[in-house]
Amino acid sequence: MTSASGHPRAAVFGAGSWGTAFAMVLADAGADVVLWARRPELCEAITRDHVNADYLDGIELPPTLRATTDPGEAAAGADLVVLAVPSQSLRANLTQWTSTLPADAILVSLMKGIEIGTADRMSEVIAEVTGAGVDRIAVVSGPNLAREIAQRQPAASVVAANTDELARRVQSMCHTTHFRPYTNTDVVGTELGGAVKNVIALAVGIAVGLGFGDNARASVITRGLAETARLGQALGADPYTFSGLAGLGDLVATCTSPLSRNRTFGERLGEGMSVDEAAAQSRQVAEGVKSCESILDLAGRSGVDMPIVEHVTRMVQGEITPQDMLRSLLSRSAKPERHGH
Amino acid sequence: MTSASGHPRAAVFGAGSWGTAFAMVLADAGADVVLWARRPELCEAITRDHVNADYLDGIELPPTLRATTDPGEAAAGADLVVLAVPSQSLRANLTQWTSTLPADAILVSLMKGIEIGTADRMSEVIAEVTGAGVDRIAVVSGPNLAREIAQRQPAASVVAANTDELARRVQSMCHTTHFRPYTNTDVVGTELGGAVKNVIALAVGIAVGLGFGDNARASVITRGLAETARLGQALGADPYTFSGLAGLGDLVATCTSPLSRNRTFGERLGEGMSVDEAAAQSRQVAEGVKSCESILDLAGRSGVDMPIVEHVTRMVQGEITPQDMLRSLLSRSAKPERHGH
Repeated sequence: MTSASGHPRAAVFGAGSWGTAFAMVLADAGADVVLWARRPELCEAITRDHVNADYLDGIELPPTLRATTDPGEAAAGADLVVLAVPSQSLRANLTQWTSTLPADAILVSLMKGIEIGTADRMSEVIAEVTGAGVDRIAVVSGPNLAREIAQRQPAASVVAANTDELARRVQSMCHTTHFRPYTNTDVVGTELGGAVKNVIALAVGIAVGLGFGDNARASVITRGLAETARLGQALGADPYTFSGLAGLGDLVATCTSPLSRNRTFGERLGEGMSVDEAAAQSRQVAEGVKSCESILDLAGRSGVDMPIVEHVTRMVQGEITPQDMLRSLLSRSAKPERHGH
Repeated sequence: MTSASGHPRAAVFGAGSWGTAFAMVLADAGADVVLWARRPELCEAITRDHVNADYLDGIELPPTLRATTDPGEAAAGADLVVLAVPSQSLRANLTQWTSTLPADAILVSLMKGIEIGTADRMSEVIAEVTGAGVDRIAVVSGPNLAREIAQRQPAASVVAANTDELARRVQSMCHTTHFRPYTNTDVVGTELGGAVKNVIALAVGIAVGLGFGDNARASVITRGLAETARLGQALGADPYTFSGLAGLGDLVATCTSPLSRNRTFGERLGEGMSVDEAAAQSRQVAEGVKSCESILDLAGRSGVDMPIVEHVTRMVQGEITPQDMLRSLLSRSAKPERHGH
């Protein structure tokens, strides 16, 4: 699994903060990496100046990291094709790129979302669009705030694939002295942990914005993970995954870091901004705002009660205020903990 | 279960921050509460001035809350006896108090520690010293930073007892509009979650003090909860408890709040202070420093590997530096996540 140079070849589609940071990890681990980005000026900055000022301001990229707007050039000869585009645009993008992807390349999703309309997980979209079997699809997810990864601060993560063998192959390509990937064969749980946590982070941000304290924040995180695990159980995930790095770990990192876009977006909503006002200030809509409805859709199809996701969705849709949301969540009757949803 | 006044009678032994805050919860829930404190001047401040400046500076206590240095006066007629003294002094204190406790009072532990020497949980010490059966012993634990509880910010918690009936009786006595107790019948897991989290919080503080970021902090929290759950499993706890408010919830609140003494203490160690220096600055030794050795003892007796607790213990004992500790924890070989300890 090596290119002519003797190094594995990796293509990373999407030069946002996480795509770029993970490209750095792959380069640090010895791969020959090409990033695909939509904008020529960004490609030039990455290849020539070794910076991605829009997403990782102040970080020096590895000199070997190149970028191109040509998907065919990015994918040529790739052993590993990493997908890191916005969740809701994956299907359209991948449909254009599929013909350029090497037939035996491993396809890795870094994306955390559930597709609106289909309620598909990202690995399901990849399988549907490319026709790749589960023996070629992996996901990477964990407590991985992109800026810290790009700064080469120590971090752990999860590489999930249907077989341990495939997970180990991907693990070996992204294991560095700073980035420690653990393997897991629960793709469903790993993806759900990443997708739902964005919505829980919004709820935590709303609580913080309303002035609630650390006890309430910890309770929202705990109850949020419990409803994520309930959804996972209904969809065949391993409950342990939610207690691990791609569940609890990612949720805690996102909900407690000022670097998290979802949490910050939630804080603005809690402080009284509308979704449009918060989006204007963040220069984008947080992933949790886009995916809460599709997660609620998935929960409904699975017959699972997800009160936090439901309340966030109603708030984002303007049906209830942040105050109503927290008051309603906190006034649910006290029950045995295990069944207290 | 009411006093002559028609209200339940509660005695709270220990007027530290959590004992005092929980006494406020009981008073808010309608109980007639008497606090026991060692120092006469503190009792006078609580009863006459409605303040506990040493532990809850700036908080106005309910006017009905009284305090006494006389254990017999505190315990007289109590339906509920709440124990909130330092873990390592419980046995000696309780031995003195036992003869004053009403024979049918429910005994509630708020304490989070494992006894040095015996490796007993606090409810075990209570049963041994008083001879009370499990039908009279309950524990309360959760994401309950005392200052926020005293400020009547919203919080959830767990009331655990061997039977659901007893848990519900205690729940009804401490359920207020701000404090929401959930019942649980896993006493072992509830106590272990609270005790081990102090040690994990030290480790998180050390990582923060050394300059590690949010990803590393989330990983230490996640791996710390995993080793807590392994200990719990060996001791017959319900794994779910560790994903709940008394496990994950308490851990997250403690590890992410600036109000946590254990985390702050760890930060000072990570910044290079000795245990003595950090204790001098905190005016006390953090609970995790005192209990790490007894938890490691309990793990050893149970044949459970707890690398984070082990490393914290060695660091506290001066065998390794904070740098050594983090380097050693982070360089463990990458494995499948579930078995990656």
